[in-house]
Amino acid sequence: MDLSVFFAGTGGSIPTARRGLPAVLVRRGGDRILFDCGEGTQRQLVQSVGLTELTEVFLTHFHADHWLGLPGLLKTFDLRARERPLAVHGPPGLRELVTLAMRVAGRVRFELQLVELSPGDVLERDGYRIAPVAVAHRVSNAFAYVLYEDPRPGEFDPETAAALGVVPGPEFGALQRGEVVRGVRPEQVLGPPRAGRKLVISGDTSPSETLRIASHQADLLIHEATFAEDELSRAAETGHSTAGQAATLANDAAVTMLALTHFSTRYPVGVLRDEARAIFPRTVLPRDFDTIEIPFPERGEPELIRWEDRQATEMEDGAEDEEGSPAVGERA
Amino acid sequence: MDLSVFFAGTGGSIPTARRGLPAVLVRRGGDRILFDCGEGTQRQLVQSVGLTELTEVFLTHFHADHWLGLPGLLKTFDLRARERPLAVHGPPGLRELVTLAMRVAGRVRFELQLVELSPGDVLERDGYRIAPVAVAHRVSNAFAYVLYEDPRPGEFDPETAAALGVVPGPEFGALQRGEVVRGVRPEQVLGPPRAGRKLVISGDTSPSETLRIASHQADLLIHEATFAEDELSRAAETGHSTAGQAATLANDAAVTMLALTHFSTRYPVGVLRDEARAIFPRTVLPRDFDTIEIPFPERGEPELIRWEDRQATEMEDGAEDEEGSPAVGERA
Repeated sequence: MDLSVFFAGTGGSIPTARRGLPAVLVRRGGDRILFDCGEGTQRQLVQSVGLTELTEVFLTHFHADHWLGLPGLLKTFDLRARERPLAVHGPPGLRELVTLAMRVAGRVRFELQLVELSPGDVLERDGYRIAPVAVAHRVSNAFAYVLYEDPRPGEFDPETAAALGVVPGPEFGALQRGEVVRGVRPEQVLGPPRAGRKLVISGDTSPSETLRIASHQADLLIHEATFAEDELSRAAETGHSTAGQAATLANDAAVTMLALTHFSTRYPVGVLRDEARAIFPRTVLPRDFDTIEIPFPERGEPELIRWEDRQATEMEDGAEDEEGSPAVGERA
Repeated sequence: MDLSVFFAGTGGSIPTARRGLPAVLVRRGGDRILFDCGEGTQRQLVQSVGLTELTEVFLTHFHADHWLGLPGLLKTFDLRARERPLAVHGPPGLRELVTLAMRVAGRVRFELQLVELSPGDVLERDGYRIAPVAVAHRVSNAFAYVLYEDPRPGEFDPETAAALGVVPGPEFGALQRGEVVRGVRPEQVLGPPRAGRKLVISGDTSPSETLRIASHQADLLIHEATFAEDELSRAAETGHSTAGQAATLANDAAVTMLALTHFSTRYPVGVLRDEARAIFPRTVLPRDFDTIEIPFPERGEPELIRWEDRQATEMEDGAEDEEGSPAVGERA
């Protein structure tokens, strides 16, 4: 089961020439889950992986740079005759905000499900869960989100199974699915259950103890790093984090990889990178359209794949984009 | 006095990889006037000529693709501590719409002047006027805008002036400004007043008789061309024009240049271009970031300057962007 994160926008507050406003597309199997939707997100998707039909949307909070792209995205889905309902989740206040926004943007014909979440809620999906975590931004309700997979069955031991008289083939499969075969119980031939993967998206926040705990041993923590350490007090005032603070949290939470986003335009990103890596070496700073692939731990560590490298690979492979639709351009 | 049009977004309805949503920046002298503001306009500007302080904004109508970029743009001006008031003009309904939009996007601290216009209104500016023209879109209130300069004094005849005893130098200047000098009246040495330049922006519309009249002898008509002739009936149903219809109107109105925008993604633009040029040869199809310079007629015709050519010229000249701020990128 593939799990990856596509960075549709890695800027913060104000878009720059290189960085769009916040939006992260999580792809797991066939699911496409969008976290935040800054202005221009639909175009960022059109210009990269294609404007896929989304499975659901989560907003971290309601500052303009994190969600103003939502009405336009929904209008485009409507123009493309989307019929499937779309659920948009967020902190309390979501319903009023999005209802008002769609009143000014114009209604859509597909069903829009507006779901207000509270810390402690856990949304069960097919093979994984998504839970909001209260963080410390300037607004009363700001969330991070944790996406964590169900535990997987332990590793199968085919030699022991064969020694117990089970026939390789369909019987092996049945055992691994939890059935008793020829009197052999699954736990006799399976190792201890293995943890699923875990992904955390911070939204905007000052260093948050709750988030640190929720991020424990995450495969990937995507954390904002609006400032560098020289603006520690400004970060605190504005409810943001420095790159150093994000790295310290990643280190304390023992995550595998830290990805920083939401940079103030005042810094060269190298300053933020160096500051973070001095504390937590496995820090990456994705650019727009980069992807982080998160394999199962036994198959390797998360890996940042630069957009230009992915493009080059796809050119070589003659492979099509996985949505089957390359960026919607013109034929002229 | 320079007059040019910068195409910040030339797409329609849905952004494509190459074309952003509608936005046209008119630059006259130091004035920067934005017509329409589709989602992503602020980033289009950041990626090209820089996010200049705007003098004022005009919306043609309230379909989402024409104005959803406004709240984000205003928020960015606020973050950059704009203090100067900003007037946003549009058809009736503007006040309620933008007030509501800013309620959801979050307020700005500079003064926002929301001005509802009616056909017949003429806004007087320094050296030019802007007037809304009612057009035929699906909404009750959709405007085109005409920007036309004040007539200029006629051509000065220095030989006649000298023969009449006026001394070349400051006295010539005084005569040209309309003063009587040494008993010589300006009309004795000036030709007939010369027309100012005229620029028309159609917004979304079916072929409009009112617009045709208002476009008479315009130097530049920017007209939507959502469809090709094979979808004539669909164009009528949806309140849009075909490329052929736009060209016919341009021809009937005897404009100097026609620029088509707002293309449906279903056509290669070459189809629209050929269809229009068969009727009106002086048709251009700007791409995002292209500019049309409009000189005074005696100095030449309007000229489309492709973005890549302008970039190349500026590189050669070592010239800076006229806003003095190249696209806000990162220093890393």
